[in-house]
Amino acid sequence: MDCTKCGNPNVIIKKEQSGQYLCKDCFIESIEKKVIKTVRKEKLLDKGDKVLVALSGGKDSVTTLEILNSFREMNIIDICAVTVDEGIDNYRQDGVDIAIRHAERLGIEHKIVSLKDAYGITLDEIMKKPNHKGSCSYCGVFRRTLINKAAREMGATKIATGHNLDDEVQAIMMNYLEGNTDNLTKLGAKTESKAKEFTVKIKPLREIPEREIGLYVVAKELEVHFASCPYAQQSFRGEVSEVINKLSEDHPTIKYSTLRGYDKIKNALKEDFKKDYSHGRCIKCGEPAANELCKACSFIEELKGD
Amino acid sequence: MDCTKCGNPNVIIKKEQSGQYLCKDCFIESIEKKVIKTVRKEKLLDKGDKVLVALSGGKDSVTTLEILNSFREMNIIDICAVTVDEGIDNYRQDGVDIAIRHAERLGIEHKIVSLKDAYGITLDEIMKKPNHKGSCSYCGVFRRTLINKAAREMGATKIATGHNLDDEVQAIMMNYLEGNTDNLTKLGAKTESKAKEFTVKIKPLREIPEREIGLYVVAKELEVHFASCPYAQQSFRGEVSEVINKLSEDHPTIKYSTLRGYDKIKNALKEDFKKDYSHGRCIKCGEPAANELCKACSFIEELKGD
Repeated sequence: MDCTKCGNPNVIIKKEQSGQYLCKDCFIESIEKKVIKTVRKEKLLDKGDKVLVALSGGKDSVTTLEILNSFREMNIIDICAVTVDEGIDNYRQDGVDIAIRHAERLGIEHKIVSLKDAYGITLDEIMKKPNHKGSCSYCGVFRRTLINKAAREMGATKIATGHNLDDEVQAIMMNYLEGNTDNLTKLGAKTESKAKEFTVKIKPLREIPEREIGLYVVAKELEVHFASCPYAQQSFRGEVSEVINKLSEDHPTIKYSTLRGYDKIKNALKEDFKKDYSHGRCIKCGEPAANELCKACSFIEELKGD
Repeated sequence: MDCTKCGNPNVIIKKEQSGQYLCKDCFIESIEKKVIKTVRKEKLLDKGDKVLVALSGGKDSVTTLEILNSFREMNIIDICAVTVDEGIDNYRQDGVDIAIRHAERLGIEHKIVSLKDAYGITLDEIMKKPNHKGSCSYCGVFRRTLINKAAREMGATKIATGHNLDDEVQAIMMNYLEGNTDNLTKLGAKTESKAKEFTVKIKPLREIPEREIGLYVVAKELEVHFASCPYAQQSFRGEVSEVINKLSEDHPTIKYSTLRGYDKIKNALKEDFKKDYSHGRCIKCGEPAANELCKACSFIEELKGD
């Protein structure tokens, strides 16, 4: 089959949902156009925004940086980046180095923050504690806190993360299955926290399937960190991911229809859940917190006991 | 293991979600109590109701009749039943005969309505038409229409169907995956149509897993029609059912958590979707209809062409 768009015989992909065959150049263009469409439709960017890209060096965050950079080149937004060093030996440093090289290549402000500097403990050290709660619980909370802090320190007006279509649909399904309607109000292309201390988060890749992002970085010859986290484990997310991919085989548009349905549900839930809500400040670190201590500091307190 | 409740060593089931071991009597009691709890919590019955049970003769509808009959014995409600004969050779008659015997045993008013009498065509005849839309599309629409009509003719104030936990969770997930938020407003324990011509539908077995209903009819020695419809086919529902059962293996409460989450989402969606809405009448048969012809009559018109 030749490229559906330009007739080039060197086709690199058959698109799952549309059935189109695309050559390299048309594929790259299709991804970039689709991200730009998401940005416009969901109003992810405002002129003058300073967007902090959460840059791990993996395929999703590098693609996010690469495509958002086109808005920077048009002087619509400014970009900066933050990389969180969780302290995982034989894994994280490669990602950090790749992140540094991308930031230098594009000439953008880049900050590296580490769990060790911020909390005095690495993820490797946490995982040696006898009663730890599993790597992902800690990593998620600490990373979120540090990225949010960096956003404020760097004067960012938005935080862009690399969540792709698969990530988003998995999160939606997990919350449907767990009946967690409170979390369902927090997903979506643009997350405005009720607490103004949290910077608005945007997901420009939300409509791009994971495998297409993998192909995009190969097609664009972007250097990315492809290794998996050594602490990645068989999780509920993994099971849900498997199930959605299986259903997608015979129903190639199912990830998109799930997303569209969710967006309508989210709007309805938001109306329903509207209530007075304001965060206090953590008495220890001053970050926004629902209780006396923020989640990160309460983890640190617990870990001291072990 | 002995029965968790009474110590009887003759255990017949380990309950998926609670982990309880139950003997026959305690199992029967647990099912009946749970249905009664659903009836109370969801306010499915009002004193003086005349409930029409949609009685196919299968395990779900026989169980519905059996347990609702306890409310009739307490003079809280009156019960009648309707059985739809779709016209499926070597299949339906057995179910009809079983339904007749249950109605006679309990001494309740029972009506048998057939597609042939109502529309001049059987499901077998429809399936011989070259361009038919698949058995389930026709069967669903015709059955719903005939049951609704019977409810009005018999003066019923509620229609009770045998939908169980598995049926309900499958329908919820199918609509999540298809992004069909309009359908999501129509599921639930009690369905009050916006058009008052449709009798309120209730699902007393909505919290009982399918396999427990199978065990209930065996334990109670209730005669039921166990054969599968010869037109049953590999369907999206079947795929979704498989996926949910697979996830349930490691997460035994997942069907319940999905249900609870959905109930909250439904409430939110209902608020959001509230709008003026009223049905006209089908110009041919006088049943409620969104268009000039109701769905059943428009199927019949189409079939005439084939």
